[in-house]
Amino acid sequence: MADETRKIAFICSKGNLDMAYPALVMGWAALGNGIDVTIFFTFWGMDMINKDRVDHLEVPPIANASMKMNMMGVPGYLGIPQIAGVIPGMTAFATALMNSKMKKLEVPTVREYLQMLVDAGAKLYACKMSVDMFGLKKEDFIEGVQDIVTAGDFMDMTDGAQIIFI
Amino acid sequence: MADETRKIAFICSKGNLDMAYPALVMGWAALGNGIDVTIFFTFWGMDMINKDRVDHLEVPPIANASMKMNMMGVPGYLGIPQIAGVIPGMTAFATALMNSKMKKLEVPTVREYLQMLVDAGAKLYACKMSVDMFGLKKEDFIEGVQDIVTAGDFMDMTDGAQIIFI
Amino acid sequence: MADETRKIAFICSKGNLDMAYPALVMGWAALGNGIDVTIFFTFWGMDMINKDRVDHLEVPPIANASMKMNMMGVPGYLGIPQIAGVIPGMTAFATALMNSKMKKLEVPTVREYLQMLVDAGAKLYACKMSVDMFGLKKEDFIEGVQDIVTAGDFMDMTDGAQIIFI
Repeated sequence: MADETRKIAFICSKGNLDMAYPALVMGWAALGNGIDVTIFFTFWGMDMINKDRVDHLEVPPIANASMKMNMMGVPGYLGIPQIAGVIPGMTAFATALMNSKMKKLEVPTVREYLQMLVDAGAKLYACKMSVDMFGLKKEDFIEGVQDIVTAGDFMDMTDGAQIIFI
Repeated sequence: MADETRKIAFICSKGNLDMAYPALVMGWAALGNGIDVTIFFTFWGMDMINKDRVDHLEVPPIANASMKMNMMGVPGYLGIPQIAGVIPGMTAFATALMNSKMKKLEVPTVREYLQMLVDAGAKLYACKMSVDMFGLKKEDFIEGVQDIVTAGDFMDMTDGAQIIFI
Repeated sequence: MADETRKIAFICSKGNLDMAYPALVMGWAALGNGIDVTIFFTFWGMDMINKDRVDHLEVPPIANASMKMNMMGVPGYLGIPQIAGVIPGMTAFATALMNSKMKKLEVPTVREYLQMLVDAGAKLYACKMSVDMFGLKKEDFIEGVQDIVTAGDFMDMTDGAQIIFI
């Protein structure tokens, strides 16, 4: 085993802003440790590589009890009633808040992070079935996405890898 | 390592239609590559093997910013305000839309996929704690579910496997 | 490989009550099987180790079609319309119901489970970026959290581990 490079494969299946970051942050750290990094985008995660959408990912506070408390500065559990999450402006508000917190911490945007990852050697692939389901083409993706691959290709590419499904 | 069969274990913890597919698609591809496939169902993922529910999985558009845009043909981000997701008919609409897209791509239904997986050698197991929590019995499950197992059994069965939690 | 201890690393990224349990249940089983267990808390999963919040995790029924059916005793699919999930009291109701089901099955609370895990040798770590994002300090965490670590540290600690992202 000693001469084999460690490999990590991420599957990004979510398009909400909060769940876009884990693969980016971990992928970047992995590259820094000399680990081979591959990121597959499927289902709603396709929005992360869709060049018209990547800059507009949102974080809906509804259905996430933690988010209301953490992001909105609600002290303790007096909190916003559950219904607050459905007021149209709440998603925009939570998204702006998360983006501003990320900026303050000097965390790159999703688009910037992906570019950094590609430049540092990570390989990005789009899932064929999702591409077909959403009627997308390779031109719809940001630069750096190497190819559109099937689940069978994914299996070939992840032999021996630590697989992280997000 | 050369003589060991590659093993993948999926844990299906979600009952929404969109998150039912990843294990099915990847599991099928894995079997095609000669990989040993085991699928564990727990929490809301139990609905995937509940014979009264497997044909009625739904995909609520709320709390998923991507879904509104991808499935509902909303151009760009002019979109449906967040509140649209709570209008009662929206979940039924999104579910019908996803099912019809899957059908057009000739993707099997969840029930069909599970049967194909079992026929091709995948092993399906239900989580004991979830069975107890939901008051279920083995008779409530589709054919092909081999057994109800504890988390300890899961650990025994996944030694050396790539584990994918969905 | 024969003399290496099997290692499992969990990443807890969700703060909803239902998604708090999988790592606890699997982690406990893993320890029982002599497996080395590490749990990393990030994003909303930070609430699991936040001493002011761990006892107040909630389970919003909205956006989870399965939950409405399983937890609320709705027969079949006649069910509560999607909008029910946003009535303020529904999250409290679903949370109380889940907690009471867990108690009946003698499943420990999240706080108790974490203590059991620590006592049995599991190592708990908080993610540095999330700590910074939420403005937390080590004093905000329950006892048993060993340290605040970067994604790079995480990579070092998970070499050879089965990684389970929740």
